[in-house]
Amino acid sequence: MEGVSHEAASLAGHLGLDRLVCVFDDNRITIDGGTGLATSDDVAGRFRSYGWDVVELGEIGEDLDAIENALETARTPNGKPRLLVLRTHIGFPSPDHTDSHAAHGLAFSAEDVTRTKAVMGIPDEPFYLPSDLVDAYRSLTNARGTEAHLAWESLSSSARQRSEWNASFGDPPSAVVDAMPNWDLGAKVATRKAIQAALDASADLLPGLVSGSADLTGNTGTKVASFSGQSASNGDGHQVYYGIREHGMGSAMVGMALHGGILPVGGTFFVFVDYMRPPVRLAALSGARVVFVFTHDSVAVGEDGPTHQPVEQLAGLRSMPGLHVVRPADANETAVAWADAVTHDGPTALVLSRQDVRVVTDGTAAITGAGIVGEVDDNPDAIIIGTGSEVALCVDAAEALKSSGRSVRVVSMPSWDRFRAQPAELRYSILPPGVPTVSVEAGSTFGWHEWSDRQVGIDRFGASAPGDIALDRLGINVDAVVAAVHDVLGVAS
Amino acid sequence: MEGVSHEAASLAGHLGLDRLVCVFDDNRITIDGGTGLATSDDVAGRFRSYGWDVVELGEIGEDLDAIENALETARTPNGKPRLLVLRTHIGFPSPDHTDSHAAHGLAFSAEDVTRTKAVMGIPDEPFYLPSDLVDAYRSLTNARGTEAHLAWESLSSSARQRSEWNASFGDPPSAVVDAMPNWDLGAKVATRKAIQAALDASADLLPGLVSGSADLTGNTGTKVASFSGQSASNGDGHQVYYGIREHGMGSAMVGMALHGGILPVGGTFFVFVDYMRPPVRLAALSGARVVFVFTHDSVAVGEDGPTHQPVEQLAGLRSMPGLHVVRPADANETAVAWADAVTHDGPTALVLSRQDVRVVTDGTAAITGAGIVGEVDDNPDAIIIGTGSEVALCVDAAEALKSSGRSVRVVSMPSWDRFRAQPAELRYSILPPGVPTVSVEAGSTFGWHEWSDRQVGIDRFGASAPGDIALDRLGINVDAVVAAVHDVLGVAS
Repeated sequence: MEGVSHEAASLAGHLGLDRLVCVFDDNRITIDGGTGLATSDDVAGRFRSYGWDVVELGEIGEDLDAIENALETARTPNGKPRLLVLRTHIGFPSPDHTDSHAAHGLAFSAEDVTRTKAVMGIPDEPFYLPSDLVDAYRSLTNARGTEAHLAWESLSSSARQRSEWNASFGDPPSAVVDAMPNWDLGAKVATRKAIQAALDASADLLPGLVSGSADLTGNTGTKVASFSGQSASNGDGHQVYYGIREHGMGSAMVGMALHGGILPVGGTFFVFVDYMRPPVRLAALSGARVVFVFTHDSVAVGEDGPTHQPVEQLAGLRSMPGLHVVRPADANETAVAWADAVTHDGPTALVLSRQDVRVVTDGTAAITGAGIVGEVDDNPDAIIIGTGSEVALCVDAAEALKSSGRSVRVVSMPSWDRFRAQPAELRYSILPPGVPTVSVEAGSTFGWHEWSDRQVGIDRFGASAPGDIALDRLGINVDAVVAAVHDVLGVAS
Repeated sequence: MEGVSHEAASLAGHLGLDRLVCVFDDNRITIDGGTGLATSDDVAGRFRSYGWDVVELGEIGEDLDAIENALETARTPNGKPRLLVLRTHIGFPSPDHTDSHAAHGLAFSAEDVTRTKAVMGIPDEPFYLPSDLVDAYRSLTNARGTEAHLAWESLSSSARQRSEWNASFGDPPSAVVDAMPNWDLGAKVATRKAIQAALDASADLLPGLVSGSADLTGNTGTKVASFSGQSASNGDGHQVYYGIREHGMGSAMVGMALHGGILPVGGTFFVFVDYMRPPVRLAALSGARVVFVFTHDSVAVGEDGPTHQPVEQLAGLRSMPGLHVVRPADANETAVAWADAVTHDGPTALVLSRQDVRVVTDGTAAITGAGIVGEVDDNPDAIIIGTGSEVALCVDAAEALKSSGRSVRVVSMPSWDRFRAQPAELRYSILPPGVPTVSVEAGSTFGWHEWSDRQVGIDRFGASAPGDIALDRLGINVDAVVAAVHDVLGVAS
């Protein structure tokens, strides 16, 4: 019933993934009761509408030979994914619980066991198994299992020794770092454009790279110039058009990463991360090396308004264990973050701008999590911490404060998780204890109390307006930052 | 393509919602290009598999009479929701952009306009409209519009004067407050059981109450004893079996709330809020009065393990503007929070325990957002702030500290958003500035720096174990709280 089943099955049918065989255990029971409580779907018809080959096998749930035959037959590709439909009975053959929804979570009582064994015609003793069956099973399992395991091991290790596999993530990994483009200070580049340049520059070095988007390929910078589209007739295409299916895209990315040899990159607008929280969490939980490209990362999205303007999404991702979150200040931090994500042992979320942002860094803060922007002043009166498109604004605010005699350090802090992992000396050199801090980010201030004494942010939903006006009216401007610094210094503005 | 279309359409077909008419504007274009890039679905077949009446109307996108006739015909109920399929052409009749994906976002150039008007056979002048058409349109719109508006206003206001409508949210609202059950201090009650008692106690007082769950009805306490199941043959049933469709459930709840006269309550396990972030956000954005019941709210869920154990979900919800989030300490705070949610002008998320928790409060902190538990000590050495199932643990830790001569206040803080909205005097009376604070919550510490100097929490994914062992091993225990208090006081443990 879950929506992701539609997204994934529809895409699988479209791509003609004929090595995919799914078994539908149609026991017509859910936790609440019979499926008739909540669904009347013609499931076979539904999967046929996706272009699947649906095989209705009837009441063969207990017929192991029939199941084996069906699976063997399904192994022969016919251009379509297969759905094998088995009509089964939960709790079978208990005389009390067959076809009962209680059987989903029920621990059988001693009496339940006795009565079920009577139906099965076997002795009512604990752990009963016929000894000839145990012997046969053990010897067969041992012989066939050993053989199968050795065959798999040989296949698997030879696959992993192929040059394509080894090179999937760069060989050597530093090749990607060396290939990264670099932008001059002062240039104006949307970080979504920077990721596209970074992907193009590394495509030849990463045979495992598979890029795609949920119908926002051009918009999110995830079209790799040299890649052709994946399709039923072009299985080698490294560009995947996932369609308007964020949940399906994220799920497929995790699956490909856990298979190995593939580095999946997937793009959508940042606000739509809400549609794919489950696979983002699954990637974090399983340490899958995937790269999520989330662009249009603030109210600067503009006219599309609050439904398209992320506010709380950064807090949502930062609170997730095991997810590396980076919001680069500019094109240079974006390229460095990308090269780093290629070798990061887990998922990375890159949070990027729609609009042009001024290049103000050399990009290295993407490695350490935070870094000082511009000249290092040893005894600042205050520190302004910014992320993403707001770092250039922080530089402007620091300039304004300098003209009134204040020495203010600007710190770009693209990644909290990375900064937390640094040694204390490094952290203290960037954020010396005791120096008052102001954070600036065009999103929820939620969580920023960990780093700053005053927060400039957006603790409400956005508004439809041209991006620069939306930012300004929602308080993301030089005046607001200067006022917050004055406030934290306890001086009148 | 979005998964929620499957969840919603499947449920609508099952329930036989024959007042629902959807128009499928089948222009075969997405942002990335032709739909053939990403889908081969037989959409008509898919909706027929859901039990819809699919009407394939062909190329009538420009034939207003045919569209009107189709809509008129569809108004006659036939037991099924209707899908009207129109084959249309984006950008029509531009000779340059018809059927082009660029037309999705393209602003026509002056030349585009000229060439299109030539095709249409109308003069190439800005804002051209035949004056007789303008006159006819204005007079008709005025006459028919006025009439239609008056008819609607009369119908709408009479509906809103019906006693059922007025009483939907309690009449008077205090009736629900008065009807709430109360539990004795020391009783042990899972807060998911408390919400069930609260719902049962208010069902007769709230004609607009519609309760349901995404296939976890019994588990989440959202089965109202006196309600019958909503179905195609029982449209009056106030209990909705949404099936395994969190996204669809949340979306339907928002729709019902915005219709008016209905107070939708929907339950699922807290970790599955990830599947329904979009409708939770939509509820917050539109101020829809819905009540989300999220149970099984921590690693105390137990054996199901990390995939079923929420950790970062609380931070994710608290960072969302416009969402009232409550994690009640016990059964009393749960009942008070429920009665409050009934009159709250917006969405409420109740975050509840699977396991029994000791009753330690009178429930009032659910109104103010935070409150002192037990006797008020005017000059505490430190304050322990807990939420939900951890408040009883905080009381135990405070007792342990008392025996070693420390005076420690315990604060239950079920709702950050509500507490932030209190006057400063109240906030300072509960959390006096300068008194060191320790927070305790079986979830991510993300965001807690706003309130506490030390955080006891779980900044990793959970683990499969019996709930009490999972909690203990992940550091949610009296020893850890006592150590944190000693740490914040600067004394050796």
